[in-house]
Amino acid sequence: VVSYPQSVLKLIRELSRLPSIGEKSAARLAYFLVNTDKKQALDLAAAINGAVTSIKFCENCYFFAEDKLCTVCSNSSRDMELLCVVEKPMDVIAIERMSEFNGLYHVLHGLWAPLKGRGPESMKINELLKRIDNGVKEVILATSSTVEGDATALYIAKLLAGKGIKSTRPAQGMPKGAELEYADDLTLSRAFSARNIINL
Amino acid sequence: VVSYPQSVLKLIRELSRLPSIGEKSAARLAYFLVNTDKKQALDLAAAINGAVTSIKFCENCYFFAEDKLCTVCSNSSRDMELLCVVEKPMDVIAIERMSEFNGLYHVLHGLWAPLKGRGPESMKINELLKRIDNGVKEVILATSSTVEGDATALYIAKLLAGKGIKSTRPAQGMPKGAELEYADDLTLSRAFSARNIINL
Repeated sequence: VVSYPQSVLKLIRELSRLPSIGEKSAARLAYFLVNTDKKQALDLAAAINGAVTSIKFCENCYFFAEDKLCTVCSNSSRDMELLCVVEKPMDVIAIERMSEFNGLYHVLHGLWAPLKGRGPESMKINELLKRIDNGVKEVILATSSTVEGDATALYIAKLLAGKGIKSTRPAQGMPKGAELEYADDLTLSRAFSARNIINL
Repeated sequence: VVSYPQSVLKLIRELSRLPSIGEKSAARLAYFLVNTDKKQALDLAAAINGAVTSIKFCENCYFFAEDKLCTVCSNSSRDMELLCVVEKPMDVIAIERMSEFNGLYHVLHGLWAPLKGRGPESMKINELLKRIDNGVKEVILATSSTVEGDATALYIAKLLAGKGIKSTRPAQGMPKGAELEYADDLTLSRAFSARNIINL
């Protein structure tokens, strides 16, 4: 039985180790890479090398950084009394896009997921506890509105309460533009229990 | 507004040029690459470089090759009178997995798709016509059972008929294990019109 040449097999194997890329997608990507223009494929390889060798994580908040500190932590105009805790660097970008938050961040790089064998030690929690002694007054726990995100937020809130720090969590409810008919039970239940008085 | 560092932006841009990878998936992949172990990311970059520089396409059939000829074309025990035409190298692997075909292949590297602006010149058809003078007796047109695959097969069959070569096409019908209730109209219609007498 004929198979792919060694170098293609190797590329397929490496591509299929990426998240959410199965063996069939990996074969398609490998074909795309060796079939389309060579320059594009070599540019991708160079971009991987470039990012892996030049990217560090900020020593303070663990967001992407090219120096010791990221561009947020090295910006002296940010509000150092307000800290927003998120799961991953992409969440920082989403919050920055909103242009309404001027505090600092803390990237956990994971969530507490006992069922997946990930305990608190898999997150940057000790690093968070060390930071908050620097005059932080409020910590916004902006992990996802999932079971794991909720559990992580609750876990951290308890640790912070022990240190006398106020924890908050972004409001949960109906997303803007959503039709009530199609809302899932949990979203609707949370939106009802957190209902607000209409001020006339 | 804070964004990703330059090297991460560049990696996201290159990843999102891959087929079926949007900007969000590209950001997730980039995070995975710079966050998991460095070695894996560098291995991927090396595998891309290795495949792109070492892989050629067979001068005879245009399947992947590391030499001038692929492992199929350089195997003298294959039946040179039978030629199977496919769209892409992955199709060769699928047919080889069946272990029932012992002829040679011809990889078109594309299908005739006028709506997408791809004409016959985008496929290795002239190369096919040159090959069949070498004693080929039957050409199996095994392009996909799609509109584009059917059109390509018909187009090539007409060209081959002009040269007195017999063209065949794999049977179309119900896939094994499929429930009739869920079959799409076209599959069902083809299965009915190509129905076979039950020999008792």
